[in-house]
Amino acid sequence: MDHKSLNMVIFSGDYDKALAALIMANGAREMDVQVTMFFAFWGLLLIRNPKNLSDADKTMYEKMLAALTPRHAEELPLSRMNMAGIGKSMLLNMMDQNDTPHLIDFLNGAQHKGVKFYACKLSLEIMGFKPEELIEGVTVVEVKDYLQDALAANMQLFI
Amino acid sequence: MDHKSLNMVIFSGDYDKALAALIMANGAREMDVQVTMFFAFWGLLLIRNPKNLSDADKTMYEKMLAALTPRHAEELPLSRMNMAGIGKSMLLNMMDQNDTPHLIDFLNGAQHKGVKFYACKLSLEIMGFKPEELIEGVTVVEVKDYLQDALAANMQLFI
Amino acid sequence: MDHKSLNMVIFSGDYDKALAALIMANGAREMDVQVTMFFAFWGLLLIRNPKNLSDADKTMYEKMLAALTPRHAEELPLSRMNMAGIGKSMLLNMMDQNDTPHLIDFLNGAQHKGVKFYACKLSLEIMGFKPEELIEGVTVVEVKDYLQDALAANMQLFI
Repeated sequence: MDHKSLNMVIFSGDYDKALAALIMANGAREMDVQVTMFFAFWGLLLIRNPKNLSDADKTMYEKMLAALTPRHAEELPLSRMNMAGIGKSMLLNMMDQNDTPHLIDFLNGAQHKGVKFYACKLSLEIMGFKPEELIEGVTVVEVKDYLQDALAANMQLFI
Repeated sequence: MDHKSLNMVIFSGDYDKALAALIMANGAREMDVQVTMFFAFWGLLLIRNPKNLSDADKTMYEKMLAALTPRHAEELPLSRMNMAGIGKSMLLNMMDQNDTPHLIDFLNGAQHKGVKFYACKLSLEIMGFKPEELIEGVTVVEVKDYLQDALAANMQLFI
Repeated sequence: MDHKSLNMVIFSGDYDKALAALIMANGAREMDVQVTMFFAFWGLLLIRNPKNLSDADKTMYEKMLAALTPRHAEELPLSRMNMAGIGKSMLLNMMDQNDTPHLIDFLNGAQHKGVKFYACKLSLEIMGFKPEELIEGVTVVEVKDYLQDALAANMQLFI
């Protein structure tokens, strides 16, 4: 029997939107649904490995962008009420009180459960992020590979 | 004959995005399409009943969040050009000149026409909103219930 | 044999989100996928013709909105890190270094490749934009026409 499938573009680099996406991804895997996440533009900020960031081979603009963006998924701001980080630390406290794992836990969980992580080649090139700066287990693909996968899925979201 | 079906996650708490979602929901019901709206995170701000809000049983953070967020759908800000409310009052004036109903009318219309309103259990817990603070006719469900419904729908949107 | 089909609502008026949408639209057409883009609310800012903008027959609010919004797709701000235009000019420089075309090129490319451009009638009316202010080749349609097309598509996104 065919498995259902869910395809998500993660365009946003906001903590709360990424959390929503990864909670869905984890839930879907527990229901045996095949899940693909295609990280593009700001979404790439979720899958950089802070230990592997390097300025080698980068232009001035690429270095500036690397310096101005969060180095790690947990450092992403909220889409709303971030209030220079106060709103976000409020949210994290409320999540802790509810025993809800943090973004990084859902990210690791998704990988362990077999969610496919794809990074957008064109976005990487424009932003000057190198494939070796990404976390392990991410495949770099073209927009057309994403479209192929998405068109065949039962459900697609742009986040 | 099977009816077509539309499933929307309402993640955003922006007036304009909520308006777009509810205009689609009303239109779809008039075309006899089955419609489910799953309110999560900031989207919960659309379905709180301002008369039922209470600080009972809330932690300090939950009280702060309740105090800092709009109490009612009509109080939501715009996603863009809100300009401390000036842009929004401009939009409302333009809607009035065009005889376009306001958000709350589309929200009531959607409920009357049979749009299913679901609230995300996990989001409620994290944000400290109680089911009894929501408007009537909303069912609290798990992320997996949402996914089940969405995967079976003809069309899914993340708003 | 049936062609696959992709339907996108372009609600956002952000340069980076519009870029993502149009890169997908171009890629999909190259794969012989049928593509419809339905421009609503801020998304209308992508398809105004700066040479045809006029204040004739506009109310005070409609004139104010016309004056406060970008007149042309290339003038749209970023959804994030816009920093009064500094972030955006950084992005454009990085795109140039990578030989990536600009938004307007992807917009023209999409039209030449046969992407269907629809403008939301209700949004036009509320915002006071006239059909004759839009670029050539755009059809004004009702929300229900959009829904009909979207429900029949293989894939739908809200951007």
